[in-house]
Amino acid sequence: MAISVNEHVHPEKWLIAPHVIRLETSIIREILKISSQPGVISFAGGLPAPELFPLDDLKRICGQVIETYGPAAFQYSLSRGVPPFVGLLAERASNSGCPTERENVLVTAGAHQAIELVARAFIDPGDYVIVENPTYVGALQAFNYYQARYVPIEMDREGMLVEQVEASIRKFSPKLIYTVSNFQNPTGISMSEGRRQALVEVAVKYNIPLIDDNPYREIRFAGRPATQLKAIGGDAVIELHTFSKTVAPGLRIGWINGPKPVMGQLEKVKQCTDLHTSSFSQYLIYEFVKQGLIDPHIEKIKANYLEKRNTMLHSLEKHFPSGISWTNPEGGLFLWLELPKGVSAKDLLPRAIELGVTYVYGSPFFSAGGGENTMRLGFSNPTVADIVEGVKRLGTLLQERI
Amino acid sequence: MAISVNEHVHPEKWLIAPHVIRLETSIIREILKISSQPGVISFAGGLPAPELFPLDDLKRICGQVIETYGPAAFQYSLSRGVPPFVGLLAERASNSGCPTERENVLVTAGAHQAIELVARAFIDPGDYVIVENPTYVGALQAFNYYQARYVPIEMDREGMLVEQVEASIRKFSPKLIYTVSNFQNPTGISMSEGRRQALVEVAVKYNIPLIDDNPYREIRFAGRPATQLKAIGGDAVIELHTFSKTVAPGLRIGWINGPKPVMGQLEKVKQCTDLHTSSFSQYLIYEFVKQGLIDPHIEKIKANYLEKRNTMLHSLEKHFPSGISWTNPEGGLFLWLELPKGVSAKDLLPRAIELGVTYVYGSPFFSAGGGENTMRLGFSNPTVADIVEGVKRLGTLLQERI
Repeated sequence: MAISVNEHVHPEKWLIAPHVIRLETSIIREILKISSQPGVISFAGGLPAPELFPLDDLKRICGQVIETYGPAAFQYSLSRGVPPFVGLLAERASNSGCPTERENVLVTAGAHQAIELVARAFIDPGDYVIVENPTYVGALQAFNYYQARYVPIEMDREGMLVEQVEASIRKFSPKLIYTVSNFQNPTGISMSEGRRQALVEVAVKYNIPLIDDNPYREIRFAGRPATQLKAIGGDAVIELHTFSKTVAPGLRIGWINGPKPVMGQLEKVKQCTDLHTSSFSQYLIYEFVKQGLIDPHIEKIKANYLEKRNTMLHSLEKHFPSGISWTNPEGGLFLWLELPKGVSAKDLLPRAIELGVTYVYGSPFFSAGGGENTMRLGFSNPTVADIVEGVKRLGTLLQERI
Repeated sequence: MAISVNEHVHPEKWLIAPHVIRLETSIIREILKISSQPGVISFAGGLPAPELFPLDDLKRICGQVIETYGPAAFQYSLSRGVPPFVGLLAERASNSGCPTERENVLVTAGAHQAIELVARAFIDPGDYVIVENPTYVGALQAFNYYQARYVPIEMDREGMLVEQVEASIRKFSPKLIYTVSNFQNPTGISMSEGRRQALVEVAVKYNIPLIDDNPYREIRFAGRPATQLKAIGGDAVIELHTFSKTVAPGLRIGWINGPKPVMGQLEKVKQCTDLHTSSFSQYLIYEFVKQGLIDPHIEKIKANYLEKRNTMLHSLEKHFPSGISWTNPEGGLFLWLELPKGVSAKDLLPRAIELGVTYVYGSPFFSAGGGENTMRLGFSNPTVADIVEGVKRLGTLLQERI
């Protein structure tokens, strides 16, 4: 009985909201599509090492969760998160130096949704956000959606130049300060202790929410642990967490640790967005943490990434021409490179793909433009052998072009 | 080294966006919290029967997914969805009478996120949406966030009074037409064949996207199958699906079937929202469907819900005073009741809770107010014995108050 109507339907003329039309597909995700071609060595992603996923433990835990929690593992649950998991997150945060109660916690679908919920709760069109320059491109994408404007603060080896923040606050009255304080994406830089104290002080002085996007803190494989911004600032800080780098990103489990009055608002936004995060995924991570598996597992990740970072540093020294500098991160997943002025990392990418290697060029991480001569290399996902070969290929490219 | 700053921090003064402040917590989710108290029989939720979750199959499939797909089941994946799952969804839709290609598909975190993504893509503040009166309160909540206005169309036993739609389109130029065509939430009513044809025709004539929110179609336990709006209208229809009612809501897997140019826009919004839906959950549902388990499982659900509906109808006849009418749905999860004019279902709820039974009062389902004398009873979640006892308690209440 179907009438043939398709030729009269014009979905291309349907009126999509203008800020959706303007949305750009993530450059990183586009490069990742290319990177999945056979023979291509990818330094583009922030993907964890697949060889480390705790498959045997997860398999066992799947069975245990189903036996122990039964239907509750598959039923609708609360927007805040599965109660025992929320309790465990609060306990674990408290043990790490940040006194946290259940009411401070909201479970999210990864840290990306955590950023998105914060952006949604705080940003009205035209609002300013203080960000590091460069900063995480995914956060810029989330803030852009709500038509944020940016106050980019330059960085050095100690992180954001905090002494510039106060003048920026006076001038722009920003809604938020956004930082990735540990092993920043994209630079790998961690904020120094002095800067951490100073940043919290200025956020408190002007009562501006300080967002600490914190996916990499536990992946420290060198140097001394830094004091968490949340441990210094308490309720002044909204901390964003994820299990994507410490267990598995495919489970999509992150969480927010923030002051109670804000968490009530964020819970409403979460509910309106997707009701709640997968109950089954939450139970899996809950058991993985509760059974004491996560800390030894993080030790394995650290050892693996340290070897990979060292391999990459060594290969860069060996194969790269002079005139290029890079960071030496004490943790996280990324190295950050500066090419000579006038060399465009974006323009080099097609040739790199021909040579069978990819990376993310740096310009999208700069909220106010610039950074054409920068690139980000991720060392967590490729094997050690691929790091050696991939850097060699990049070296060939740079020898050709510089 | 932490400075004591908490007394100087005032998160209660942080500027949350006004449309977030205005967000109301879902009434259903609040009533569900009360309903979880011991001894309370709940007719409030749209929760599937927990005794039917295919725990043994899911347990086996967890192991198979990990063995078969390995790290890919836990790694980041594409925003569209895990490719073999996307392919299977397209194939299954095509087999059900709606020719569908991979490019028509986007996997979401449940149908709620599907509604939210559509609302986000289409609704600018002040835009009109044509809805049934009453309609699904969760959709109203999602649309409200984007400051939609409504054109509510009255219903009878054949569904929306489609003959009123054309005049409404001419008057209000709505952005969307939103319907739950099968076993509607909250009324349980399904749209008649004639109305389906007419609704598609008017949507095509004015080129207005027709959103068919379709979580209940497969749960038909009586009567003849209806033609899907998508089978009639093709690209004129954006169909929203979920596995929450046919497998398990805790996995949070839904999907959208829409015209290609729109799906590209929705994919961007999805990416910006939470990158992608849990890879592991997608693989679990993929295997459950691929192994041919879903259709026999749906047969079990239908037999169970038919018995529960019949029990509820029988109990209502037995225990309810005259002057109350209810629907007799051929599928889905809900019955809809009209009390005598002047009786407020909201005012009766506290006494119902005292008596140990809950329901959802009907007024929040009406986008323009009214419906105070209506209530929704869900029969899928309680046991048969609890349905008998719960309706008896409600009968006591109504005998007291009417």
